[in-house]
Amino acid sequence: MRVKLTLEYDGSAYAGWQLQADQESIQGCIESALAEIFGAAVKISGAGRTDSGVHARGQVASALLPRQFDLSDLKRALNALLPPDIAVLKAEAVPQDFDPRRDARSRIYEYRVLNRETRSAFDFHYAWLVRGLLDLDAMRSAAHEFVGEHDFAAFRSLGSEERTTRRRVLASDWQRAGELLCYRVEANSFLRHMVRTMVAAMVDAGYGKTARGDIAALLTARDRAAAPAPAPACGLYLVEVRY
Amino acid sequence: MRVKLTLEYDGSAYAGWQLQADQESIQGCIESALAEIFGAAVKISGAGRTDSGVHARGQVASALLPRQFDLSDLKRALNALLPPDIAVLKAEAVPQDFDPRRDARSRIYEYRVLNRETRSAFDFHYAWLVRGLLDLDAMRSAAHEFVGEHDFAAFRSLGSEERTTRRRVLASDWQRAGELLCYRVEANSFLRHMVRTMVAAMVDAGYGKTARGDIAALLTARDRAAAPAPAPACGLYLVEVRY
Repeated sequence: MRVKLTLEYDGSAYAGWQLQADQESIQGCIESALAEIFGAAVKISGAGRTDSGVHARGQVASALLPRQFDLSDLKRALNALLPPDIAVLKAEAVPQDFDPRRDARSRIYEYRVLNRETRSAFDFHYAWLVRGLLDLDAMRSAAHEFVGEHDFAAFRSLGSEERTTRRRVLASDWQRAGELLCYRVEANSFLRHMVRTMVAAMVDAGYGKTARGDIAALLTARDRAAAPAPAPACGLYLVEVRY
Repeated sequence: MRVKLTLEYDGSAYAGWQLQADQESIQGCIESALAEIFGAAVKISGAGRTDSGVHARGQVASALLPRQFDLSDLKRALNALLPPDIAVLKAEAVPQDFDPRRDARSRIYEYRVLNRETRSAFDFHYAWLVRGLLDLDAMRSAAHEFVGEHDFAAFRSLGSEERTTRRRVLASDWQRAGELLCYRVEANSFLRHMVRTMVAAMVDAGYGKTARGDIAALLTARDRAAAPAPAPACGLYLVEVRY
């Protein structure tokens, strides 16, 4: 039987989602727990490969289980075996051919910016501290320029090789919650470092370093060197994968 | 000159506020940083002694500085030297006789209960996970029974010796924020374990284990054994000290 797992994790202590030979990864921890439960190796595949330090509130992974297993027992067993910073929110039966990456219609990420002068004792691993007053209206305008289908060649990690750099952004906006500025973006899929580079460009807009229309110009020029360096990993959360 | 420091800390990694011979304490970390800045021992006193695992968003401490020092420089130097889970929010000059404990008119604490079935990857150190649906209305009713001046002998740590166990509660209420139930309480001062024991009693009310009027009866009976064990430290935050 094939299972779909919905996962929450604090990525602070991990080298990222993907299995690593010599470092702790989220995938590695879950595969170890499954191996303990089933007494045999069980491979999982995820909807997206979150980088080191990136968090998830709704990552999706799938595994072909070696035998039938009650899924509420599986969820309980995994939550008992996994470290406290990884939790299984749901375990559901899916068709044998379910592929969490290929079948996803869209992904939603959030990015948290803490806009204050003094560093926070709580948000060190959970938000990007940006000092100096940011203009939220300018950031929202910049966010809206990303909506639609565009070529995101300027907003990706240079090392990544993808068939196409075109992506369709369905929603892109900022909200304020006190000192915290929360960005929420939905797209059919994302390039590596895409959200973090978009956030860095929007923070430039918030500082008044760039003006209305500069985002559209960056998209059109497709020049990675013209876009800023990505915002830190710690502010990024994969919140939902839609099927 | 005397300084008043307003502090934020994540108490997860510490043995509590108070200086310990063999364990890391918040007070110890701040005194070490001050000693490094001034090249001499500097003692601090706090408004309240938070226990191990208890957090603060607005603890207040005071120190007599060995010499004049620009207070915005002091704040910056402390934030550079202190570990990431302790931050100085404010450093202000106060009269020589300022006493953060004695001069406080009231303290405000918050307690966070995560009311859901599955443990959280993020809130392990920051909220008490309570499974099973809690009745928020019953908890709010119970909270209101604490308002006023009462003898809190049933709601304290048995080891503690205080001149009086009477305390005046100025405000006491719960609010829901999604799966999170947040309790906020203001009193002239608190006994050791008082908020955590009150929270445990209110969660009993939320489960329907106790009824309206039972809190008032516990207060009147003054019997520690009749009240529940304190709720875990990790959900508790000292949020403000009022002068």
